[in-house]
Amino acid sequence: MLGRIALAIGTAGGDMGGIDIVQARKGSMVRDFTVTVRDDAHAQEITHTLKALPGVRIRNVSDPVLIVHLGGKIEMRSKVAITTRQELATVYTPGVARVCRAIEDDPEAVWNLTIKKNTVAIVTDGTAVLGLGDIGPLAALPVMEGKAMLFKEFGHVDAWPICLDTTDPGEIVAIVKALAPGFGGINLEDISAPRCFEIESRLRELLDIPVFHDDQDGTAVVVLAALQNACKVVDKQIGEVRVVISGCGAAGMACAKMLLSHGVGEIVAVDTAGVIYDGRTENMTPPKQWLAEHTNKGKLKGTLADAMVGADVFLGVSTAGVLSVDAVKTMARDPIVFALANPDPEINPEDAAPYVRVMATGRSDYPNQINNVLCFPGLFRGALDVQAREINAEMKSAAAAAIASSVARAELSEEYIVPSVFDRGMARDVARAVARAAEKTGVARRKRHTRQTSASG
Amino acid sequence: MLGRIALAIGTAGGDMGGIDIVQARKGSMVRDFTVTVRDDAHAQEITHTLKALPGVRIRNVSDPVLIVHLGGKIEMRSKVAITTRQELATVYTPGVARVCRAIEDDPEAVWNLTIKKNTVAIVTDGTAVLGLGDIGPLAALPVMEGKAMLFKEFGHVDAWPICLDTTDPGEIVAIVKALAPGFGGINLEDISAPRCFEIESRLRELLDIPVFHDDQDGTAVVVLAALQNACKVVDKQIGEVRVVISGCGAAGMACAKMLLSHGVGEIVAVDTAGVIYDGRTENMTPPKQWLAEHTNKGKLKGTLADAMVGADVFLGVSTAGVLSVDAVKTMARDPIVFALANPDPEINPEDAAPYVRVMATGRSDYPNQINNVLCFPGLFRGALDVQAREINAEMKSAAAAAIASSVARAELSEEYIVPSVFDRGMARDVARAVARAAEKTGVARRKRHTRQTSASG
Repeated sequence: MLGRIALAIGTAGGDMGGIDIVQARKGSMVRDFTVTVRDDAHAQEITHTLKALPGVRIRNVSDPVLIVHLGGKIEMRSKVAITTRQELATVYTPGVARVCRAIEDDPEAVWNLTIKKNTVAIVTDGTAVLGLGDIGPLAALPVMEGKAMLFKEFGHVDAWPICLDTTDPGEIVAIVKALAPGFGGINLEDISAPRCFEIESRLRELLDIPVFHDDQDGTAVVVLAALQNACKVVDKQIGEVRVVISGCGAAGMACAKMLLSHGVGEIVAVDTAGVIYDGRTENMTPPKQWLAEHTNKGKLKGTLADAMVGADVFLGVSTAGVLSVDAVKTMARDPIVFALANPDPEINPEDAAPYVRVMATGRSDYPNQINNVLCFPGLFRGALDVQAREINAEMKSAAAAAIASSVARAELSEEYIVPSVFDRGMARDVARAVARAAEKTGVARRKRHTRQTSASG
Repeated sequence: MLGRIALAIGTAGGDMGGIDIVQARKGSMVRDFTVTVRDDAHAQEITHTLKALPGVRIRNVSDPVLIVHLGGKIEMRSKVAITTRQELATVYTPGVARVCRAIEDDPEAVWNLTIKKNTVAIVTDGTAVLGLGDIGPLAALPVMEGKAMLFKEFGHVDAWPICLDTTDPGEIVAIVKALAPGFGGINLEDISAPRCFEIESRLRELLDIPVFHDDQDGTAVVVLAALQNACKVVDKQIGEVRVVISGCGAAGMACAKMLLSHGVGEIVAVDTAGVIYDGRTENMTPPKQWLAEHTNKGKLKGTLADAMVGADVFLGVSTAGVLSVDAVKTMARDPIVFALANPDPEINPEDAAPYVRVMATGRSDYPNQINNVLCFPGLFRGALDVQAREINAEMKSAAAAAIASSVARAELSEEYIVPSVFDRGMARDVARAVARAAEKTGVARRKRHTRQTSASG
């Protein structure tokens, strides 16, 4: 029986892991099979195959990813014990009243005497979650919990998810403004374009703490770092390269602005209606009009394929499969292709490989993973360390430079343009560079302690 | 020199604790003195006295309460490690997308797969914090952190502070409604009356998770429990007693309604303008008009002292010193006095002692501390365990009964009518009773696991 089951799983394409005996009785046996599958459909297919075997009954099918998520992935913990009446009287009434009065007398004391010092709100409305789209605030919560874990693991930042049951930009701005007192920074997450532009820029004006939309700002920082290193690999100056950006959503807009402000030679942006140029009327929005006026100086018209002719860099922040191999073949020498659509890139890396010099994706199963985790933990760490009033362009530039330079010149290669997310030294370098930039540009409330690497440690 | 310093501290009324040598040099010595003082002014007085001593220089004065608060008292922790790429791909992209889809397909799955299962928002606008009043959202944060610690310590509930920079009831309602998806319950905290009544009742209608204003609901539950036990001690039926309530704020209103619904014989409410009666026009609000119509059947007019004549119970939720010893002397046999104003009660317990049979305060340094910590951790534990849609009257009654009965009949005495906050079994009993009441009244989404005492444990 065991052999027949194993054979059926193998024939159906399942990758068999462990087998455990749960219960052995006369004439029946309960076994636990661990099987790696491609996706949910594949899992169902194998389940059906096994159900059809005579003498086999399936008692339960469980997904280890769901099991890890049971009850949520994060928790609140006290830093101080409450085991005696004396401790209770210190952290709560009556002792805590002295702390309240100290803050009432000097509001800046809130930075030293409360969690504001080290806490970021992860705010989403669930409208543009991963590649899943508008799945709403409830279904977005597991991603925000994961983000909070990354903040802590890589930046020693305490972050808490705030999933909003509204998509109205004015309401979101009012809500975030109102809840800002308890936080030292705001990380906007997975809010769809074009609403995210307005929400971020209004909040940046209203608040005296950093406001950062990771899907825009974080992606732009990491793309800039990766592009700086890729240019070194192919021996081109960033001021000479022509970049074609596919996708004009949150990430595309932010990347375009970031690359322009860092002197990229030329940018041509493309959306589903083709190349964006000054004078185009179809499918335009104010952000795209801005692009039309600030990119594509050559007033090129046409399709993505037209734009790709002679391009040095393709930057895809759009959807799976939009870039053809034929188009890649028309690029300038030593093509750089960043195909960041998730989970399936704009072009299959294997198909592109023969014609591309430097290839990067958003995936962990290929070299050069362009992952926002490289940026946001260190960036917020640095901002919180100096109690920054905002995250400005200089701080983002500093973060990009620190990420790029964490790959030593001698290590740089086609397959190694960005550091690993597990490179702990990198987050520290980013934090230090960001804090220094904040101090230089006058947005730091205090100086960074030189020996301090984390507010909580 | 040491002797002169110690003498000066003692003469100024300071209570000397430890003395540590920090640094010893030829001709100079740095010492650390730990001194217990009455209040900030007393600390300053002692500091000035010492400064005036020849040869003494004060290098630093620090407050251990403030030191405990440095950097805040709570933090976010991951329940799952991220040390490998595989773990990253499970808790974040791409694995987490499966969890998002599971919730998108079945929104109720959010209760099992996210922190919503065990998380409460502690929401305040900082308008009525402790006895400090309207100190604003920044200065309120240390109290909310302390509250979060109590939720965890006594109820295994993950709570996070949300301090709002708005006092507009409509805005507060809209904000809390919008951020509800990420939470399994809402604990409103320290919001001033009468706004708190409207905010709580509107949110209770709008949301499908428990909404609880601790200053109202929590106080009422604990007062009811204490009164039930106090009546046993003096051998009176709760239906017979006449209660004078001093204070018609959040706590006073909630206590009046709770006691009325539990059959208290008679209630007379008193505010700064005197006894509240039907027909009074001075200093009235809609909540006080409700009181006028539902209490004081005898249409008594006059002062607090007038109301106290023949009263069985005094319940003070007002301000220090409003109750005179002379007024206590006019009460019925075996007077019960709950003087809950914080930090200074309505009457000095030592002054009242000769004339009172059962005395309770909000303070930890007298017997019978009426503390909301007795209620909210167990109450929310029970509500979350069954994923309750609300906290209804039956659940609050059940909580009060569980608190009251956790002091065994044989243990009951004038000095022991409520359990200690450190009685861990009590919170479990409250949770069990609340969960059962939620199931009985049909507001539970699921049954409580009989062997489960905490969602996180």
